[in-house]
Formats: sequence, C-alpha cells, structure tokens
Amino acid sequence: MKLKLIQYTPDPERTVAMSARLCYSASGAEELVQTMPDTQIGNLIDKLVDMGHLSTFEHASFTFAIEGISRVLTHQLVRHRIASYSQQSQRYVAEHGFEYIVPPSVAANAEAKAKYEALIQQVQNTYDELVALGVHQEDARYVLANATETKIVVTMNARSLLHFFEKRCCHRAQWEIRNLANAMLAEVKAVAPRLFAKAGPTCVSGGYCTEGNLSCGRLAGIKMQK
Amino acid sequence: MKLKLIQYTPDPERTVAMSARLCYSASGAEELVQTMPDTQIGNLIDKLVDMGHLSTFEHASFTFAIEGISRVLTHQLVRHRIASYSQQSQRYVAEHGFEYIVPPSVAANAEAKAKYEALIQQVQNTYDELVALGVHQEDARYVLANATETKIVVTMNARSLLHFFEKRCCHRAQWEIRNLANAMLAEVKAVAPRLFAKAGPTCVSGGYCTEGNLSCGRLAGIKMQK
Amino acid sequence: MKLKLIQYTPDPERTVAMSARLCYSASGAEELVQTMPDTQIGNLIDKLVDMGHLSTFEHASFTFAIEGISRVLTHQLVRHRIASYSQQSQRYVAEHGFEYIVPPSVAANAEAKAKYEALIQQVQNTYDELVALGVHQEDARYVLANATETKIVVTMNARSLLHFFEKRCCHRAQWEIRNLANAMLAEVKAVAPRLFAKAGPTCVSGGYCTEGNLSCGRLAGIKMQK
Amino acid sequence: MKLKLIQYTPDPERTVAMSARLCYSASGAEELVQTMPDTQIGNLIDKLVDMGHLSTFEHASFTFAIEGISRVLTHQLVRHRIASYSQQSQRYVAEHGFEYIVPPSVAANAEAKAKYEALIQQVQNTYDELVALGVHQEDARYVLANATETKIVVTMNARSLLHFFEKRCCHRAQWEIRNLANAMLAEVKAVAPRLFAKAGPTCVSGGYCTEGNLSCGRLAGIKMQK
Repeated sequence: MKLKLIQYTPDPERTVAMSARLCYSASGAEELVQTMPDTQIGNLIDKLVDMGHLSTFEHASFTFAIEGISRVLTHQLVRHRIASYSQQSQRYVAEHGFEYIVPPSVAANAEAKAKYEALIQQVQNTYDELVALGVHQEDARYVLANATETKIVVTMNARSLLHFFEKRCCHRAQWEIRNLANAMLAEVKAVAPRLFAKAGPTCVSGGYCTEGNLSCGRLAGIKMQK
Repeated sequence: MKLKLIQYTPDPERTVAMSARLCYSASGAEELVQTMPDTQIGNLIDKLVDMGHLSTFEHASFTFAIEGISRVLTHQLVRHRIASYSQQSQRYVAEHGFEYIVPPSVAANAEAKAKYEALIQQVQNTYDELVALGVHQEDARYVLANATETKIVVTMNARSLLHFFEKRCCHRAQWEIRNLANAMLAEVKAVAPRLFAKAGPTCVSGGYCTEGNLSCGRLAGIKMQK
Repeated sequence: MKLKLIQYTPDPERTVAMSARLCYSASGAEELVQTMPDTQIGNLIDKLVDMGHLSTFEHASFTFAIEGISRVLTHQLVRHRIASYSQQSQRYVAEHGFEYIVPPSVAANAEAKAKYEALIQQVQNTYDELVALGVHQEDARYVLANATETKIVVTMNARSLLHFFEKRCCHRAQWEIRNLANAMLAEVKAVAPRLFAKAGPTCVSGGYCTEGNLSCGRLAGIKMQK
Repeated sequence: MKLKLIQYTPDPERTVAMSARLCYSASGAEELVQTMPDTQIGNLIDKLVDMGHLSTFEHASFTFAIEGISRVLTHQLVRHRIASYSQQSQRYVAEHGFEYIVPPSVAANAEAKAKYEALIQQVQNTYDELVALGVHQEDARYVLANATETKIVVTMNARSLLHFFEKRCCHRAQWEIRNLANAMLAEVKAVAPRLFAKAGPTCVSGGYCTEGNLSCGRLAGIKMQK
C-alpha cells in the first residue's frame, strides 16, 4: 500500500477552533482567527471532542492518494458516503499484467500461496486472451479478481474521518481496510494532532465496545456495551 | 438479473405535489393532501420537472431488492451517495460454487465464452481449495472474479433516482448498470408515472447531450451540448 | 404545534430486518421478506441497535407535516442535513395577521407577555404598512419576528431520526425543538415500536451523558461521559 | 456584508485535474501531481465542465467567514445540505442593540424606512425589557426580527459551490442571498479561475433558462427551456 496525504485545509485546527468560538461569541471570524492563542485552540478542540460537538470539524478537509490496494478494500471504502472519490477505471485502463494483493494469511501458507498465484496468472492470461479475441476491456475485466490493485483519491473532512476511524480502525474491521485506516490516521495525526488525539475505535475514543461476543477483548473486565 | 420494487412511499405523487403546494400556500399539509384533485397533482408535477424544482421529489422513497448482478455493477452503483445500500457480504457468506455474470459480448463469442467459463471454474476450484487449506473465506474471496453474482437492497428517493437515471440510462453507461437502471425506471414508472415521465439520459429529459464526440448520435443534427 | 405523520415506508420493521438478514445470508430478499417470522424481526432489530449497526434503518422513511412552529425552531431543524424539507415561503405567502409562538417562560410572566404581544402587534402593523407603501412582501418580511409561525414537511429515514432524537430529545436542547422531537418520536414509535425502542438522548439510548457540567443531572451518580 | 475566504484546499485546480487524470491513467497520483503542466490542467478542467463530469471538483474545498447578513439569508443558505455551517447562536449570544439589515427597497423609500427603523428600535427595547424581566435570552430572541444580523462560517466544495451559484446567482434568487453568492463567486474565481470560469445561473453556464414566464428575459430570443 502506498498512501500520501496530498492536500489538506491549511491550519486545520485553528480553522475548526475559530468556527466553534464564533457560535458562542460576539466577535467575528477574522478577529478570532488572528487572536486565538494556540493553547486556547488546543483546549477548545479537546472540549469539543469530549462533548461530541463535532460539526465544526467539517471545516477541515484532507485529500489522500492511495495506491496498491485491492478492490475488496475500495468496495468497502466507497460505502462511506460523506466523502469524495476518484478511482482508476477498469473500464478505461487496460489491466494486462496487473498487480495484485496477497492476503497475509495466504502469504503465510506456502501451498495456499502457490495456488493463489497460479490462479492469478491464469486470470492474467485469460484477460489477455479475451482482449486478443476482440472482447473490449470493459467486458474482459469481468474475470479480474477482487485482489487486483487499484488507485484512488479520497477526500474526507475531519468529522467524517473520525467516523471512518471509529469503524475501520477496529480490530473487527477487515484487515486490509483496517491497515489503510491506521495509515490514514497516522498521516492526519502528524498535521492535526489535537483533532485526532482520541481518534480510533470506540474502545479508544470512548472506552466502550459494542461488538458483543465478537469483541477482541481488549476491554476485558470493562463493560462491553455503552 | 432479478429486480423487485419491494417498498415505496404510499401515494408518492400526492405526497410530492402536496409538499410543493405547501411552500406557496397559506393552507396546511393535511388540508392539501385531502383536497388536491388528481389532475392538479399531475399538472403541478409536470411543472416542477420543467422548472427543475425537484426538492419535493425527495419525499417519495423507493426500495428495490436486486439479485443476479455482478460486483462490477455494484461497485459503480454504490458510488451514488444519496442512497442507502445493504449488500450481501463476501466476508460472511461462503461463495462455494457461486453464480456469475457473462457479458453479452463474451456469450456471443464461442471461443471467448469457453475461456471465460473455464477460468470461472478454475476460480471456484481455487476458492474451495484455499478454504480447505484453512484460509478464511474473508481472504479466499480475494480470488473471486468481478463477475461473481451479488445481492443488494437499494433505497433512493425520487430526486436521487432521476439523477441516477440521467447518468445510468445513457447509452454511454456501462451495459450492466444501464440494464439495471432501465429496469428500475420501468418499475417506478409503473407506480409513479408522472414523477418519472421525463426520466432518462439528458437527451430524453432535456433534449441535449454532453458526451461530445463520444455521443451515441441519437441527437444527430441537434446541438450536442447544452 | 400540529404534527401528523402523513406517510411512511410500509412495513418498516420487516423492511429493515430483511435488509440486515440479506447481508449475512445466501437467501434472496424476496424470500426473506416472506419467510421471516415477526419474533425474528424484533430480535434482529434489537441486536442491530445494541451493536450500532444502523445502516439498514435507512430503508424506512417517515414524512411529517408540521404546523404551528416558529422559525426559531425551523432554523435549527433544517440544519439536520440527512433529511428533506419543504417549507412555507415567507417570500411568496403573505403574512398579514400571522400567527406566532409564545414561549412558556413569557406566557407565565404577565408583564413580559403583555410586552411580547404588544410588540408582535406592532410587527403586524408595520408589515402591513410597508406592504401598503409598496414594499414587496419578500422585503417586508425582514421585520417579521422569529416567533412567526411556519409550516413544513419533513422526511427523514429511521437512522437519521435516531440521530435527531439523540440530539433534540435531550433536556439540553432548546424547548421548542425538544417538544417537536418528542412528538415525532411518539408518532414513529406508534408505527415502528422496535425501531425506536431505545430512541432518545444518550442517557436513554446508551446510559451516558456528554454534557459535562451542563448536564441535567438525570444520570447523577452515573458516569457523566462515555 | 463582510465576506472573507479564510481557507481553501491549496492548489485546487491541480488537485482536481490530477484526480480526474488518475481515473483514466495507469500512472499514480503523486506522479500526476508533479508532472501535469499548467496548460494541461486548464484544458482538462474546461473539458470536465463541458461534459458535466464534476465529481473531481469535490476534492477542492473553500471556507468563508461571513458577517453582516440577515437570518432571512441564512435560513435559505443552510438549506444547501452538501456544506458545513457554524453559525453565531442567538441562544448563547446576547442580542442587546443588535445590528440589522435594511432591504434596498425599504432604504429607498423614506416613509417605509422610518417605519422600519422605528420598529427595529421597538424590537430592541422589548428584547432588553424581556431580559430585564427575567426572560432568558433564548426565549427573548423570539421577538427578534428576520433582519437581525448574524455571522456564519461556511465550507463547500467546488462542486457544491457550482450548484449554489447556479441557483443563487440567478436574477430570480432573493436579492440578499444573490448578493452573497455573487461575492462568494468573485472570491473563488480569484483563486481558482478555471474551476469557476462558467459558474453562475444556467443562462451563463449552459445558455438556457428554466424560469418560464418568470424569467428575467436576459436570454430573450433564445430558447427559454433546456
């Protein structure tokens, strides 16, 4: 997986904090932007998180370029609707000799890995043969495996990201999207540490778990349901 | 493909028309619901469509159950974000001997069809072998083809459907999702003919085409851009 | 306030439960709709609520006609974005002798009430005078009070409603929108009791409170933060 | 009105163009960001606009601080749901001696203006008296006029802005929100001229009008409906 945070709203924490202050202040936005000291910004953001007042987090947006992920992952990813996506098209981009993902559980099992790779080779051959027989690549792609690599640009605001991290950083999330979510979280934490200080599954952000008997047990001894 | 309109807002056209009337009337909703004659409803809906005032179309929702479609289709479908989806999970549902879609261009080419089906058979075998080797089905599914059949429940309101039909009933849309869009349009037209009277690609709904030199040419002789 | 649930997705609980089952079942939607017994539906819905798996709740929509509420209320209401609104226009509907809301705290204070009503009378007079002087009603309305009554049609799906009830049934919500939220909750509970069994502020739905030292104290002795 | 574009996605046009190229290219995002020449970016954006392929415009977000506008305006503004808002609260911020908007049609009519200002003075007095009588400001605000000034922070992405400009820059839009829309358009055009080159009502962006016999007539002699 190759992940890069390619753009984001400049000064995201100041933008969020100023917007929150505006709601409860007679002062204007411009004045607030210039006069709020950094410590006040941090404290206000912490308080917003604690109270669950996250609407102002929407003013900060983050755009990622992601490569080397499977369509298993992206089919889950694009279900998050408060987000924007631009994905490499299998309809318009030829997939001869495509790259593909190997799940760790397959990579760790020599016999499984051999069968897996043999099949992928077969898929590549058949894709090429179909195209050679005059089948347009938009139809030849029906044989492509879920494992086929894809590229995608994703933009989410900080509130939507917090929700994404809550669902997808959880141990119960599918491993590939969990890896992506953790990598995205590391990227945004580097540029907006206070906004994402408590980001993660509910066991991290809220100290509770709703997975019932499917829980990973990280909170053993603590109540398992909010 | 198996498509069924399983639920929808009762009396969708009256609901839409009443909501539109409310905006410009001193009367209340309940009174309007009871007193608007059918002809007034039809005429008002036609006028809303002509003026592009579609916000009231959101009050009517339609829920479809769809089976026998590929994941090529659903990966495009779920990109429509003003909608609700519940899809059969490849993580939790075993895919031994799965059904699959064959594109018409492949079905029409005997040699391509033979190669296509041989590969799918190979995929099924490998999936079974991986599971037999202890690979969890959530990882074995990485070998599954785009062609694999899936099931999905979709809810969209009438405004979102109009947008969906504009994009996906177009001759330029990918054939499988175009077939689905046309089938969905037929279903909703049967229960709400006035709401969807002009539904379809922009050449149908507005008499123009934005596809440039990729246009299907249906509007040849007419301006190709709005 | 006059509230009426004018339309909703028929059989909302069966629709939600069937959609949830589809995700984890090899069976199709139509079969599930017909064969799921009522007790299974209720139990499944309870489990979805407990696990916070609410996406299938989106397949059930509810449309309300609401009258006799102020624009203080609707300005807050329309901030809920996963919803559809059609509101009576002050631009197109004349407001001569408009009805208005009196807050209970004003109604309970004779002196305040007298001043309040005198001012409203003054507003009505000035509105009429401005119109008589040739000011279009779209500009005359600038003098209208927040208290002026309005009418609105609102559609939300069950998931969005649960969020609305969480925020607006809370004791900390503004009284008028809280009254509306409680009335809406009563309406939907009557037709879909299981979907909304635990609906309400977080102290009801989850046993926690995030209002900190502004909390109403209903959960006194219990932890004040999730 | 006081308007300031306080933040936006850096290099918005390159971000949009790169995302669009990614969909149809075997290259990755990072490579595309670095290697696309400026002229290619401009040409690609023009083509996206012409074809109505606007999804990549969502990757560029713009945040405005707006002051000196009425609640007539903001009640319309917040109906645009693909946007984020933080508005000064009349519940928490005292409105003693509030500022207010005077519509031009009122300002131009001496008699109307005198009545208008007398009423506003009356509203201010009554607000103060109610608070002095112990009415909480969250209830005293029920007497405040639509004309009362408010402050708001708004974030929209470029696609949502194009829709906003289409509806609100139209001559048929209410004058105050039209003024705001025109001012916002000028701000974003200064930093992203190609993205917003054709932004505006449909007579500007598409050469057609759907307002029927309510049209301003700017397109007289040209077809009045797409």
